[in-house]
Amino acid sequence: MNLPLSRFPVPESIDHLPDDLRERILTVQEKAGFVPNVFLMLAHRPLEARAFFDYHDALMERESDTLTPSEKEMIVVATSARNQCLYCVVAHGAILRIYSKKPTVADQIAINHKTAAISERERVMLDFAMYISQDVGELNEHWEQKLQAVGFSQDDIWDIGAITAFFGLSNRLVSLTNTPPNDEFYLMGRVPKDKS
Amino acid sequence: MNLPLSRFPVPESIDHLPDDLRERILTVQEKAGFVPNVFLMLAHRPLEARAFFDYHDALMERESDTLTPSEKEMIVVATSARNQCLYCVVAHGAILRIYSKKPTVADQIAINHKTAAISERERVMLDFAMYISQDVGELNEHWEQKLQAVGFSQDDIWDIGAITAFFGLSNRLVSLTNTPPNDEFYLMGRVPKDKS
Amino acid sequence: MNLPLSRFPVPESIDHLPDDLRERILTVQEKAGFVPNVFLMLAHRPLEARAFFDYHDALMERESDTLTPSEKEMIVVATSARNQCLYCVVAHGAILRIYSKKPTVADQIAINHKTAAISERERVMLDFAMYISQDVGELNEHWEQKLQAVGFSQDDIWDIGAITAFFGLSNRLVSLTNTPPNDEFYLMGRVPKDKS
Amino acid sequence: MNLPLSRFPVPESIDHLPDDLRERILTVQEKAGFVPNVFLMLAHRPLEARAFFDYHDALMERESDTLTPSEKEMIVVATSARNQCLYCVVAHGAILRIYSKKPTVADQIAINHKTAAISERERVMLDFAMYISQDVGELNEHWEQKLQAVGFSQDDIWDIGAITAFFGLSNRLVSLTNTPPNDEFYLMGRVPKDKS
Amino acid sequence: MNLPLSRFPVPESIDHLPDDLRERILTVQEKAGFVPNVFLMLAHRPLEARAFFDYHDALMERESDTLTPSEKEMIVVATSARNQCLYCVVAHGAILRIYSKKPTVADQIAINHKTAAISERERVMLDFAMYISQDVGELNEHWEQKLQAVGFSQDDIWDIGAITAFFGLSNRLVSLTNTPPNDEFYLMGRVPKDKS
Amino acid sequence: MNLPLSRFPVPESIDHLPDDLRERILTVQEKAGFVPNVFLMLAHRPLEARAFFDYHDALMERESDTLTPSEKEMIVVATSARNQCLYCVVAHGAILRIYSKKPTVADQIAINHKTAAISERERVMLDFAMYISQDVGELNEHWEQKLQAVGFSQDDIWDIGAITAFFGLSNRLVSLTNTPPNDEFYLMGRVPKDKS
Repeated sequence: MNLPLSRFPVPESIDHLPDDLRERILTVQEKAGFVPNVFLMLAHRPLEARAFFDYHDALMERESDTLTPSEKEMIVVATSARNQCLYCVVAHGAILRIYSKKPTVADQIAINHKTAAISERERVMLDFAMYISQDVGELNEHWEQKLQAVGFSQDDIWDIGAITAFFGLSNRLVSLTNTPPNDEFYLMGRVPKDKS
Repeated sequence: MNLPLSRFPVPESIDHLPDDLRERILTVQEKAGFVPNVFLMLAHRPLEARAFFDYHDALMERESDTLTPSEKEMIVVATSARNQCLYCVVAHGAILRIYSKKPTVADQIAINHKTAAISERERVMLDFAMYISQDVGELNEHWEQKLQAVGFSQDDIWDIGAITAFFGLSNRLVSLTNTPPNDEFYLMGRVPKDKS
Repeated sequence: MNLPLSRFPVPESIDHLPDDLRERILTVQEKAGFVPNVFLMLAHRPLEARAFFDYHDALMERESDTLTPSEKEMIVVATSARNQCLYCVVAHGAILRIYSKKPTVADQIAINHKTAAISERERVMLDFAMYISQDVGELNEHWEQKLQAVGFSQDDIWDIGAITAFFGLSNRLVSLTNTPPNDEFYLMGRVPKDKS
Repeated sequence: MNLPLSRFPVPESIDHLPDDLRERILTVQEKAGFVPNVFLMLAHRPLEARAFFDYHDALMERESDTLTPSEKEMIVVATSARNQCLYCVVAHGAILRIYSKKPTVADQIAINHKTAAISERERVMLDFAMYISQDVGELNEHWEQKLQAVGFSQDDIWDIGAITAFFGLSNRLVSLTNTPPNDEFYLMGRVPKDKS
Repeated sequence: MNLPLSRFPVPESIDHLPDDLRERILTVQEKAGFVPNVFLMLAHRPLEARAFFDYHDALMERESDTLTPSEKEMIVVATSARNQCLYCVVAHGAILRIYSKKPTVADQIAINHKTAAISERERVMLDFAMYISQDVGELNEHWEQKLQAVGFSQDDIWDIGAITAFFGLSNRLVSLTNTPPNDEFYLMGRVPKDKS
Repeated sequence: MNLPLSRFPVPESIDHLPDDLRERILTVQEKAGFVPNVFLMLAHRPLEARAFFDYHDALMERESDTLTPSEKEMIVVATSARNQCLYCVVAHGAILRIYSKKPTVADQIAINHKTAAISERERVMLDFAMYISQDVGELNEHWEQKLQAVGFSQDDIWDIGAITAFFGLSNRLVSLTNTPPNDEFYLMGRVPKDKS
């Protein structure tokens, strides 16, 4: 069963997209070897796509105080799994496996972050991400103390909160468009390089 | 009791902000007569702020097929109320009152959109916004038919879904920063102009 | 869109109501300048209406140990908002604004009592009201200690619990009859007297 | 383990209670052979107690259009079970057994009204009571049609809604006071008269 | 209204059942004076029935470290009530009354174990059973400490968890088959022997 | 981070286990190339382990009317994912990939069966499994008709219901013991045989 890329129109070719979006797509294609479906889904609305990618990069490519790229991807996977977003779990699960060099951690976090083989710092981080994402709970002294106790700075806390909030938006765009993950993502980072 | 603008640093003055953000803030200040707190809260992170405003404008200032500016604000108020975001309910409730020229509709929608004095089209629109926002439900034929039956185009459906998703992000940034609404918003659009 | 007063019959005129109910209605009309819709809705059942008002007055006009009239209205607004009862939020929000002389506190509590600009005492009071109202939780030592620590007596605790329970009944009568608030309530207490 | 009658003071003797309350208690004692605990719990607040009993009688002793006394008790048992109120389930379960002459129906409804051996009319009635009680849902055409289809009049609908709302109040008073049912209630109506 | 034993076929007679199942049924019939409906419901699938009974006996007839037969039945009643399984609440409520010699404890636990007249040890035990049963929560140090503090051994903890898990299976088989309890169960253990 | 096999004791060697359990373990080891952790976890209680495996085999190795082995594994994966049981999702996800020869279907069902690339028959089957598993809902005519419409027999319905019920038990045993999946499961069935 082959699912369509989106319930909404997607560009027939990327040739007619605005230059910056086409450039962005070509860059990711070169790096990944394929065009992630979400790029084509978002291209239906170039203005929104541009803001989406700018926001994404501002958060995910930011040099955080202590929050690592791998931890950021953990937040994405945990948030997306609770929001039942297949695309984001599979695509960012792949990135998490690559960044962390741990082939099983993405599945562990997607199914149940409380039983995953992660550190106490990572568990508190994901508990807080769930509190913001699922309860839309307010940051307060109780949470600040818990997060600081495992080494997060105030700006790290912003990052954790903003990343889970941003991917909550992303998850809902995918549920709106029914965009499936590319098949390539499922296997990325699962097989050690020297064995494949 | 005066609440601080944010749990995170805010710029002491807007003079040192990047030109485009300062410009944006001066424009809204001129129009509204004050600087909405959320602009200063977001200015802590200029890159994210810029993407946030770009995304906001791409959705809210877009000429939609049939979705009106007033309907868009209804979506924002209903979403934000369910996410218990005071800032967004109060600020966008004000805008909704002004756009719709109905001084009571924002409170009605914030408390219970099912009993609000709105049209069937508006009620279906808000039911769908809640489905995307609260259930992270997937768009399907059932919903497309219900939405088309009250006059929405496929692109309107994208707008409804994307607006509720975007303000879900906005609601969570506010819960992260504890940013309160400016006092001015509470009364806007409640008193007929000629009486005040 | 003008909503009817009730899905059930309402008296065509108050002239034929039992004397005590007519008296009660005339008294509130004189004080408020209009007849609150809920009086006419309840008049469909005079026996129940009389018991309802007696119960209401026994709780709300009682000289409590330390619980103030303004705090009682906070309980009503918070309870009614969680039960999505527009009538009660709007009517008692008006009374709360008048009693507290704070034009924004009712909206703050209606949307999210956890982020409202209220005291610790008030927050614990509303947490307990939500526990009784939403969880139907049992009073226990843990709650008694929390409530006593912010100055409530045992009889105050009864008052808080009974008020939230009584307005849970009130909220459900309104959802049964679809009774909307009078337009007058929306603006009451929002504009300082000397300015209007 | 003997539980106290209430977390709040109860009258040492009924001799000093207002005449009408003492009269009411003596009447029920004569009829039942004992004083139901809830009478003594409520007597801590005579004004509220009087309104409570007046409201109770207005609803429960009312000659309804088609709603029977047995059906009214079903509503009380189902509501109270969902609110986890032991006193009300046990006391009104006893009354339901006596009215219906069915020794097992109260337990069936308390545990799961969907699988109880009741009629379609009774099931729709309890579904509606749960909708008002648990969802605080608004009466609408959909529900009116379902209820009318099984023979309920508009005034019956008020009765069903008001009874479930009133006992929601009652359930919360019991959770506030921790009042346990009298032991006598547990067995009433279970054993056929001629066998005991 | 007489409900059928099961939505699925039941053996017309137990004569053609495999020897061990027939033997088991005859044994329970001799002891109880009737064949509990669940035995006939399960007999539709002899292989599954045999495994079910083996599992049941391994848990319920096991000599536990400190967990008593009466406590085991408390777990069954509390679990089954939360899963709204009439059969299991009524049948095991009867056994609990007999084992504990307390004619009211089963109803108390079925409606609300938090307000039941039970010991602190029993309350912690039931809190943990609800955590495993309803939240599918993971055993952790926090829970181990709470359970050990009221005297449970590590193997008792397994028993509590496994019993609540097993009866969750049982509850779902009953909801699948709609099997009602035998009338005999309702009254068992309610009337003191010397009075009946 | 290496997680222990169980919070409870596991046999140091399988040599001292009862013959039938040791035999069973050796058989699965020969077939899979390793001993699945759940076998050693369960071996702490031989009587329960035996009943568990007998029940498992009675359901999973049964020749059903139309329900296929691949469909049975879909039920296990969907149930276990909703119960957040990592062991069962990973181990049975592997089996599902092997049976169905579809390397991505297990992840799709684990994250969101509503958006998975499965047939209408499979979707109705999983909707029903969730209804039994999560709502402990009763089988009724409405569900029988929906299930028959996509080709399931009455005995298939039993199988679907019983499998989801049995794995609900299994999920809770794993949450009780914290048993992690063997690393080998994560990759099984993901890479086409001729490529590995």
